[in-house]
Amino acid sequence: MMSNKLQCLRNLMKNGNLTGGKVVNAYFLPRTDPHESEYINERYQLVKFISGFSGSNATVLITDTKALCWTDGRYFDQAIKEFDEGWELMKQAVPESITPSEWISLNMPYGSVIAFDPLLLSHSTAKDMKRQLGSMKIELLPVEKNFIDELWTSKPEEQINKIKLCDIQYTGETSANKIERLRKLIKAKKCDSIILTLLDDIAWLYNIRGNDIEYNPVVLSYAFITLDKAYLFINKKKLCEGSEEHLKGIEILNYDEVKDIIISYHESNKHNINHKIWIPSTTNYKLSSLVNDNNIFTSPSPVQVMKATKNDIELKGMKECHIRDSAAVIEFLIYLENELSKGNILSEKIAMEKIDSLRAKKDKFVSLSFDTISAVNQHAAMPHYKMTDSSNLPLKANDVYLVDSGAQYLDGTTDVTRTIVIGDKIDQEFINLFTHVLIGHIECAMAKFPEGILGCRLDSFARHSLWQSGYDFGHGTGHSFGSFLNVHEGPGGISFRNVQENGKLGSGQMMTIEPGYYRTGYWGIRIENCYEIIKCNVESGANNFLTFSPLTLVPIQRKLINKDMLNSKQINWLNDYHRVVSETMSTYFMQHGQEEEKRWVQDACAAL
Amino acid sequence: MMSNKLQCLRNLMKNGNLTGGKVVNAYFLPRTDPHESEYINERYQLVKFISGFSGSNATVLITDTKALCWTDGRYFDQAIKEFDEGWELMKQAVPESITPSEWISLNMPYGSVIAFDPLLLSHSTAKDMKRQLGSMKIELLPVEKNFIDELWTSKPEEQINKIKLCDIQYTGETSANKIERLRKLIKAKKCDSIILTLLDDIAWLYNIRGNDIEYNPVVLSYAFITLDKAYLFINKKKLCEGSEEHLKGIEILNYDEVKDIIISYHESNKHNINHKIWIPSTTNYKLSSLVNDNNIFTSPSPVQVMKATKNDIELKGMKECHIRDSAAVIEFLIYLENELSKGNILSEKIAMEKIDSLRAKKDKFVSLSFDTISAVNQHAAMPHYKMTDSSNLPLKANDVYLVDSGAQYLDGTTDVTRTIVIGDKIDQEFINLFTHVLIGHIECAMAKFPEGILGCRLDSFARHSLWQSGYDFGHGTGHSFGSFLNVHEGPGGISFRNVQENGKLGSGQMMTIEPGYYRTGYWGIRIENCYEIIKCNVESGANNFLTFSPLTLVPIQRKLINKDMLNSKQINWLNDYHRVVSETMSTYFMQHGQEEEKRWVQDACAAL
Repeated sequence: MMSNKLQCLRNLMKNGNLTGGKVVNAYFLPRTDPHESEYINERYQLVKFISGFSGSNATVLITDTKALCWTDGRYFDQAIKEFDEGWELMKQAVPESITPSEWISLNMPYGSVIAFDPLLLSHSTAKDMKRQLGSMKIELLPVEKNFIDELWTSKPEEQINKIKLCDIQYTGETSANKIERLRKLIKAKKCDSIILTLLDDIAWLYNIRGNDIEYNPVVLSYAFITLDKAYLFINKKKLCEGSEEHLKGIEILNYDEVKDIIISYHESNKHNINHKIWIPSTTNYKLSSLVNDNNIFTSPSPVQVMKATKNDIELKGMKECHIRDSAAVIEFLIYLENELSKGNILSEKIAMEKIDSLRAKKDKFVSLSFDTISAVNQHAAMPHYKMTDSSNLPLKANDVYLVDSGAQYLDGTTDVTRTIVIGDKIDQEFINLFTHVLIGHIECAMAKFPEGILGCRLDSFARHSLWQSGYDFGHGTGHSFGSFLNVHEGPGGISFRNVQENGKLGSGQMMTIEPGYYRTGYWGIRIENCYEIIKCNVESGANNFLTFSPLTLVPIQRKLINKDMLNSKQINWLNDYHRVVSETMSTYFMQHGQEEEKRWVQDACAAL
Repeated sequence: MMSNKLQCLRNLMKNGNLTGGKVVNAYFLPRTDPHESEYINERYQLVKFISGFSGSNATVLITDTKALCWTDGRYFDQAIKEFDEGWELMKQAVPESITPSEWISLNMPYGSVIAFDPLLLSHSTAKDMKRQLGSMKIELLPVEKNFIDELWTSKPEEQINKIKLCDIQYTGETSANKIERLRKLIKAKKCDSIILTLLDDIAWLYNIRGNDIEYNPVVLSYAFITLDKAYLFINKKKLCEGSEEHLKGIEILNYDEVKDIIISYHESNKHNINHKIWIPSTTNYKLSSLVNDNNIFTSPSPVQVMKATKNDIELKGMKECHIRDSAAVIEFLIYLENELSKGNILSEKIAMEKIDSLRAKKDKFVSLSFDTISAVNQHAAMPHYKMTDSSNLPLKANDVYLVDSGAQYLDGTTDVTRTIVIGDKIDQEFINLFTHVLIGHIECAMAKFPEGILGCRLDSFARHSLWQSGYDFGHGTGHSFGSFLNVHEGPGGISFRNVQENGKLGSGQMMTIEPGYYRTGYWGIRIENCYEIIKCNVESGANNFLTFSPLTLVPIQRKLINKDMLNSKQINWLNDYHRVVSETMSTYFMQHGQEEEKRWVQDACAAL
């Protein structure tokens, strides 16, 4: 039976009420918000509403007869489970994959009309699709009213969350200074202004934080920077005490006024032959289409690159928050060991609540940085497992337990994964695979590499040991992260898929390293640390070589390691890492009067 | 003083004689031919004529006041040396690089006109540039008459070289069969025809070879394949006896008739709403602009992928020709050792002539596959050094000597580099760097990796050992090569720069591995073998893992290796490789009554 929602949507497509009478042959909908956010506010969960699928990567196309949803390997099983009647999975990144544009070209007749919400498609994607489909005489039609919104009568109200003002003691740089640096980049591209729509760009630039998206301390907003003005567009009810002083010199207007300001700026500068607005490729098509094509300069947002390199104050905060965060994880590991070795039976949920609550007690804690993944045995085999009440498995001695978690602190952002077994019945094959993953982690972490390369060039170091035995894992090796900002922050990353030219590695950048291995139906392994990229000494004397310095300071369970598989360099790396963990965390625990934790961490960090 | 040629060209730009009176503000010229060839016929050396620069990668832009030439790191020094007065180097692939389009955007006023020869710009590049410049109101103007041709009064005549017909005993597949396979791919993309302009695509498809471009056994030609016809466009004077029989069923027309056939095919199919011609992105803009945009499907040439995987007959030929080729290289190494250890002084030129002549004596030899690089000491530090009479250095005992060479045989194509020192005065730093390069070679060669990945994911394995000590090299790690075809053959390759989606690695593909290290002004190191990609066994039991099996069988000089730097796996690989070299080449030399060579190779292959 076809879902009722689909029927209603197809009626909307046919009756042309939202399109001035024009019949629509398909509705195209990426799962995003007007800011190309990865995590989105509940109010933008349109794909979930219409299809049932809740994954973070989805693109939907609904025709008269088909309801298609594209997603990647992380979500194939979940999508099938969650889909309402009538939905079909379109696999991304498999050999037989085709893109939505290709599917449309191959399956929709000439003259078809594909409607979309211009707020939910980026400038660059819309341009590409228009070009591809235009040559097939297929129209990509922006429609102001979102079709799904029409059906979604129970859509949640907008929450009014007050913004937070970030003190210079955490940001290390005033907003005025950041704006000046940005203006230099604007001028270097011969532009006179820039539109900013990425929420973390705006939060970073104006030194503000918010609470509009779970786990990402950002504010729903736009920014527009000209050579002499800086605008912030935001629901003014969200302004807190002190905002005026903090945002002095910045013109604050309501969220929806961004259109009017861009239109009027564009109008009054059109006569100038050199008038050019920098419209980052991620800008939504609604805003970009306000500007004539020949007054647009398109390129990724320069703020992404600016904020990727942390300043000294941010680096100091990042190190400090990782010590507190690692303390919480260590306290959690001790708790697990105590409980499970006594024979007590916990659960994924109990464990999750425990680690979340231990973090929440730490100084400067604000929120988690993503949903804690608390996964036992076969659930650990799903890299993006999300526990629900019905999936909640017991956690006992000898279970494989994977916990991937992190938090937002006023002075930084964390993300760490450990896979552990409390007990002695450990399968030798599991130990060997754990060791392969660890070797991959170490090989990547101790790599030295020239400044300015793209992170994708390090990805295979994390896979080499697995590959030699015929194993692999299906996700990237690492991602950058913000300073009290998004836990996934562009443009850098260590992934064979991420080859963004602006993601060049440099000292002062943040990176996770998190190889894994997943045995479907049985168990999964992932070992993740956060690192700072630092300059390093090399034999050649060259001064442009980089390596990784650990931020995360949590022991890696030694009994899961097959020492015979490691070479001496790898053993030395692990012992060095554990020595730093032991020294730093012992000091922390001593300062906090935590004698048991101090002893435990010293013991866990003994040389291999 | 400005070069006279530039002055003449600027006059042509100003007087509008070739553009119907329109004044041209810049002339844009990539160094290529109408077939996007890497190696080009002398008649297309337009960049060399106008600028003096002879490198294989160049893009030129001449404005009223500037003469700019873009090239990459291989050629920075050479370009500076070769440039005529008035030319300026634009560096590619350095942090401050800007593309020609970016330079134009930033430096040329609105309303500028940039002329180019539509035969010398690919469909995809022209489209991209038109889009980028169009938004700046800068016109990219195709002009039928090439501006440089107007000045080049002494341009060489076209040579009439007879084509060669390839027997099934070498190709392993009939042309008819290849065309049928191609038609299936055309239909799968819902196209009704395809234009082929890449010369090696055409040579492979029709099982013909030619002599129109030095080292590349191809014929200047076009092909056009519909669902029921196959055309070959070629200067008919080049047809040899038997051509008619060999090319039965294929319509043969003159080279220039390609335009008329495409126009008439397009005209007579325009009424069909499903009419679509596959125009590979490499097709020149002159041909692609004959077809309406909405009847074009653009994607890389599918023939590139078809011919990348060699069939059993081609694989057999490839193995056999590499044995003969390796024999020639070994004979050369013996000659060098004998001469230099006696205290004789040779030269780059003498050595080059020697190795070339030894190859030429081998069975089924056709030609070299590229200019032999015969480089002593500081010349070896230039990866693409080309000896001239004035640069010819003496070659003596204790010199570092690098020789990169290969040949075309009826049954395959070869490419091998060895770096050697005859004598005992060898710098320890040189030995350590040689060993780093060797480790990189071995790590790449013994890597196991999943089927279908892009070669760029293996590139860092070849650099890891160098990176750890703060060294690197500025070129790719490897390239694919043809079967009695171009020594550089797309789409696969092991390079961080090559991320072509159609270059997925699979068994039966060819690949070189050739890391290096270059100490400017002193010496250079490169160790290059040809490999076949084969399936391999892995511990996990997975059947989709690949590795490299050596085709090149030439010893690597043991005394240049610092054994202490190698781990046991690396030593085992080298000993295994040398055992295969010793066994195979001993047999070859015995069969040819070459007792001295047999003893030498066995000695050179002793275990490390």
